[in-house]
Amino acid sequence: MAGRQAVKVYLDLLSQPCRALLIFLKHNKIPHTVELIALRKGQQKTPEFTKLNPMQKVPVLDDNGFVLTESDAILKYLATTYNVPDHWYPKLPEKRARVDEYTAWHHVNTRMHASTVFLQEVIFPMMGQPTNPAKFEKALADLNGTLDMLENMFLKRQPFLCADEISLADLLAVCELMQPLCSGRDILKDRPKLLSWRNRVQSALSDSFDEAHSVVYQIREKFTAKL
Amino acid sequence: MAGRQAVKVYLDLLSQPCRALLIFLKHNKIPHTVELIALRKGQQKTPEFTKLNPMQKVPVLDDNGFVLTESDAILKYLATTYNVPDHWYPKLPEKRARVDEYTAWHHVNTRMHASTVFLQEVIFPMMGQPTNPAKFEKALADLNGTLDMLENMFLKRQPFLCADEISLADLLAVCELMQPLCSGRDILKDRPKLLSWRNRVQSALSDSFDEAHSVVYQIREKFTAKL
Repeated sequence: MAGRQAVKVYLDLLSQPCRALLIFLKHNKIPHTVELIALRKGQQKTPEFTKLNPMQKVPVLDDNGFVLTESDAILKYLATTYNVPDHWYPKLPEKRARVDEYTAWHHVNTRMHASTVFLQEVIFPMMGQPTNPAKFEKALADLNGTLDMLENMFLKRQPFLCADEISLADLLAVCELMQPLCSGRDILKDRPKLLSWRNRVQSALSDSFDEAHSVVYQIREKFTAKL
Repeated sequence: MAGRQAVKVYLDLLSQPCRALLIFLKHNKIPHTVELIALRKGQQKTPEFTKLNPMQKVPVLDDNGFVLTESDAILKYLATTYNVPDHWYPKLPEKRARVDEYTAWHHVNTRMHASTVFLQEVIFPMMGQPTNPAKFEKALADLNGTLDMLENMFLKRQPFLCADEISLADLLAVCELMQPLCSGRDILKDRPKLLSWRNRVQSALSDSFDEAHSVVYQIREKFTAKL
C-alpha cells in the first residue's frame, strides 16, 4: 500500500508462531520494525505489554494503532492488506477454505503436541524441573498421530499442505515441527514424505527460514554439547 | 447463489461446533440436508465416514463434492459463498481480523476448557468412568480464566465478542459455553456481563438457538433428576 507506514511486531524468536510471522514479513518484504519481548525474562508480563495484549503472549502486531494478537489472524490480515502472492492465502473460497481448515486444526494438533514435546524435553530441564516421563511419552505418541495425519490427509494429493504452492498453513506448521530440534530431536527423520515437504518449504522460503531458525540451531548446539 | 444445490452436513447435536453450524444454516436459510452421525454409537469411525473425514470428527460439510472439515473453516466458507449479512464475517480487513483473532484463540481456551468440564462432569460418569477431581478442578480454574478474558478483553468495549453485531465468534463461543449446562452447571450465572452477552446472542439467533440446544436441555433434565 503506497504511503503505508511500517508495521510493528512484538516477538520472541524462540516462539514458533513469532518465527512464522517474521519469516512472512521478511520473505514478502513487508516494511516492519521488531521489538523483542524475552519470554524467559518475563517481559510479556510487564504492565506496558499487558496493556497491549492482556493475554501476555507474543506475537502482537501493531499496524499504526490497530493492535492484533494471534499469529493465525495476524498472518491472514497481512496477507489480505499487503500485495503478497495469492498462494499464501488464496482468494478463491475453496482454496482459502483449505488453509482455514488446516489453521483451525493446527492449534490442538501440530502446535499442541510438538510444543509439549519441546517443553518436556528442553524447557523443563532448563528451568530445573524434571521431565514427566508419562506426559513426555504421551506427547510423543500424540505428535506421531499428528504427523500421520499431515502425511495421510493434508499431503495426500499435493506437495504442500493445502495446495500445489506454499501457504500460511505450511509456514505455521514448519515452525512448530522445527521446535523439538532444539534438543537434537528431528521428529521427521524417519518420515520421507514429511522430510521432502520440509525441504520444499525451506526452499520456497530461502534465507528467511534459516535466519529465523538460527536460535533453534544455537540451542541444539548447546543442548547436544551437554549430552 | 442461484441454482446452487443444497449443501450436506454431517452432525451430532451433542457436539458444540455442530450446533453452531446448524444454527448458522437455519438462521441464514441456507438450503441444507443433515446426516446425523451418533458419536456415542461410534458412527464417526465407520469406514464410510472415515473416508469422508480421516480425522473421524464432526461436523463435515459436503458442498456438492467439495468436502470440508473444521467448524471454523466451514462457517467462514459458508459466510463467504452465501449471501449472508456481512456482520457474520465482515469483509473489511480490520473487522475480519477481529473474528479471526477470536476464532484462533477459541480452540485452546473457550473450547478446550468448557468441553473438559463437560467431559469430566457428564461424559465420564455416563461411561462409567470416575471424574478425576484434580483434572476437574483444573478445568474449572482454566475455564474461569477464559471467562475473565472474554469479559475483560473481548467484551471490554462492545456488546458482542468482536463488534457491535453478532459474528461467527459469538456463535462458536456460545455453543461451547452452553455445554456444561448439561449437568445443570450454568458457568455464567455469577457473571452479569457474560449473561447479558448470552441473552443478546440468543435474541439475535431467535428460535434456531433453542432448537439446536434442545439436546442440552434434555440431558440437563435427566442429569438433574438423578441427583
